Amino acid sequence: KINSTRLWDSLMEMAKIGPGIAGGNNRQTLTDEDAEGRALFQTWCTAAGLTMGVDEMGNMFARREGTDPQALPVYVGSHLDTQPTGGKYDGVLGVLAGLELIRTLNDLDIKTKHPIVLTNWTNEEGTRFAPAMLASGVFAGVMDRDWAYDRVDAKGKRFGDELERIGWKGPEKVGARQMHAFFELHIEQGPILEAEGKQIGVVTHGQGLRWIECTVTGKGQHTGSTPMYMRRNAGRGLARVTELVHEIALQYQPNAVGAIGHIDVYPNSRNVIPEKVVFTVDFRSHVLETLEAMAEELMSTAPGLCADVGVKFSAEVVGAFDPPAFDETLTARVRDAADRLGYSHMDIVSGAGHDACWINKVYPTTMVMCPCKDGLSHNEAEEITPDWARAGTDVLLHAVLETAEV
Amino acid sequence: KINSTRLWDSLMEMAKIGPGIAGGNNRQTLTDEDAEGRALFQTWCTAAGLTMGVDEMGNMFARREGTDPQALPVYVGSHLDTQPTGGKYDGVLGVLAGLELIRTLNDLDIKTKHPIVLTNWTNEEGTRFAPAMLASGVFAGVMDRDWAYDRVDAKGKRFGDELERIGWKGPEKVGARQMHAFFELHIEQGPILEAEGKQIGVVTHGQGLRWIECTVTGKGQHTGSTPMYMRRNAGRGLARVTELVHEIALQYQPNAVGAIGHIDVYPNSRNVIPEKVVFTVDFRSHVLETLEAMAEELMSTAPGLCADVGVKFSAEVVGAFDPPAFDETLTARVRDAADRLGYSHMDIVSGAGHDACWINKVYPTTMVMCPCKDGLSHNEAEEITPDWARAGTDVLLHAVLETAEV
Ligand SMILES: NC(=O)NCCC(=O)O
Ligand SMILES: NC(=O)NCCC(=O)O
Repeated sequence: KINSTRLWDSLMEMAKIGPGIAGGNNRQTLTDEDAEGRALFQTWCTAAGLTMGVDEMGNMFARREGTDPQALPVYVGSHLDTQPTGGKYDGVLGVLAGLELIRTLNDLDIKTKHPIVLTNWTNEEGTRFAPAMLASGVFAGVMDRDWAYDRVDAKGKRFGDELERIGWKGPEKVGARQMHAFFELHIEQGPILEAEGKQIGVVTHGQGLRWIECTVTGKGQHTGSTPMYMRRNAGRGLARVTELVHEIALQYQPNAVGAIGHIDVYPNSRNVIPEKVVFTVDFRSHVLETLEAMAEELMSTAPGLCADVGVKFSAEVVGAFDPPAFDETLTARVRDAADRLGYSHMDIVSGAGHDACWINKVYPTTMVMCPCKDGLSHNEAEEITPDWARAGTDVLLHAVLETAEV
Repeated sequence: KINSTRLWDSLMEMAKIGPGIAGGNNRQTLTDEDAEGRALFQTWCTAAGLTMGVDEMGNMFARREGTDPQALPVYVGSHLDTQPTGGKYDGVLGVLAGLELIRTLNDLDIKTKHPIVLTNWTNEEGTRFAPAMLASGVFAGVMDRDWAYDRVDAKGKRFGDELERIGWKGPEKVGARQMHAFFELHIEQGPILEAEGKQIGVVTHGQGLRWIECTVTGKGQHTGSTPMYMRRNAGRGLARVTELVHEIALQYQPNAVGAIGHIDVYPNSRNVIPEKVVFTVDFRSHVLETLEAMAEELMSTAPGLCADVGVKFSAEVVGAFDPPAFDETLTARVRDAADRLGYSHMDIVSGAGHDACWINKVYPTTMVMCPCKDGLSHNEAEEITPDWARAGTDVLLHAVLETAEV
């Protein structure tokens, strides 16, 4: 069993970097705070006797040697970047639980046949640079490295330039590594485990996602002197599409969700009728046909709704993945470990996207989930208990050990 | 008659400062560009033999002496600040027409009994710091100087600090000056004069305004892992209120307009359900009862609409003025001048707010309007013809001369 106090202390130590405004974190990818978090993580890895490799996407790989030189490593990890108003556990728990697992193996002087590589994936959140899980996506070969470098943030800064600026563009070719398996522990970010009173979620599947960036174009005009009949208010297009997205998601209950999280209004002045509104629709479902049907309904209905109010609708998919099904053997090992350790558990579908979803495309992958309070995540008030963190990390340790072979 | 070429050249020269991205201007109040525009204006005033006074709100007063030392000055002017994506004529025409008027008097060596004071009012647009017409409002005693200093922009910068930073906080007490009369020439910013084929608008009244800053509060949660039934999406409150504002304005056609121009979403991340949306409703009418009824209907209906979708509505008035009626004697002089000069004209209600609306509260005031293409303003594509500018300035010259007495 792992050292729960040491794990919690590390979580609290990391949370000091990029503090938020309400007790959480703002440590967005490729910011100075991200660089600081990475440096602290590297210090801890070095102290634990690990060797660090960094690839061209800034993904960090800290390796603990195995006893068999031929054996492919077992990878474990998640991400250290956060939302602008993010929690202390989303992603961070998965990385620091991996570190705790290695510290525990060191304490107990346990050797594994397969090396264990602790991983921090770059830009999981996708807030600053869409899409989410960008660097694991490039690693898995689903996206192109140079295309990723060209992603820009709201200020027009390129991913590639920012990666270089913070000093974490590594020499290693992305995706060159081969994996025996990949494990990711993550907080659920939803309400099910807590409501069902379970300590462990055995993640069999995940939801797929479509991020559709929409642009509604009207005409920028004076709010006072322009008669109502002349107006082409792009904000009214946003209003119609906001309700449409909600209605589409409601049609497919309980197998779908949908919302608009990101909205930019131009020129965003109190006395100018919005000329243009750019916003991103986020649709999810664990049923591929549902996901596709939702995206199609948006594309076919929104232009007409907008035309009705005199504005133009256009859209582009800026993020997409299909619902993943995780490796059954590895998933069974998670279930067995929870059983053996006496932790209550249930099978669960991941509501969020994770780096594990991309790695699952190329190597056997699974996840472990632990509850979070009130299902609240992507919020500074995100909270878990030390007991939940410990149970998840214990299960991770056992499933990884069984895979890495003692 | 004025020198139309010289007027146009000055307009084009000023438009070089703070160029926009589409042929217009971004010379928002109290920015470096505003300071540059003020400096150019001052150079021109000095060259025309005027003496500059600056008050504590940064209002600029360039004085041409009269022949009677006891006579109160006739004021003429408008504003040099622009919208973020503003035109080259909104406000600027009124200031530079006043300059052209003085240059013409100098050319013709005409002396007036009353001094003439050319004015540039600070922060007319109200984009960066709400409310609009802030400095003329303080001059007229409707707002307090220190309250104005405390207005903050979207980045949290104080009006008072920014005024000092750009070096235009003057020594003169605001509102200390007395006026014989105030004249403001402005582009119509609406479609009526052009549609009616008139060169001059004789402004008898203006619309009143209510700016109501609304806050919709929901809960910031994960867009993927939060079930639909748990959501409190502040964006849905925005959608409902957007449509409500439109419907309220339609009820009072053709005597009212309404829209939301400014929207800030928090935390504005693609995978976070909006926790909070802050936006400003802009209602206008030239009928006071209508204006008040619209504001009341918003306040009474919006909370329920928002509660229906699980979010909280609150609101605060951040800008307000009642419909002004301009001085009948001065207005008649504008009408007579247009007649005498052979320019076609009609009586008109100003759709926009103007510094003249506040000054009208304390001294005899009126306005002259000229058409603008397609009624388009608060848009970089705002356009007028040199002929329209000339006709408006000629009429301004004659009405001012009659008031300042040759
Ligand atoms: N786990 C997580 O919040 N990932 C960000 C990508 C997503 O929105 O699902
Ligand atoms: N003229 C003008 O656009 N003034 C800004 C204040 C308003 O919105 O009416």
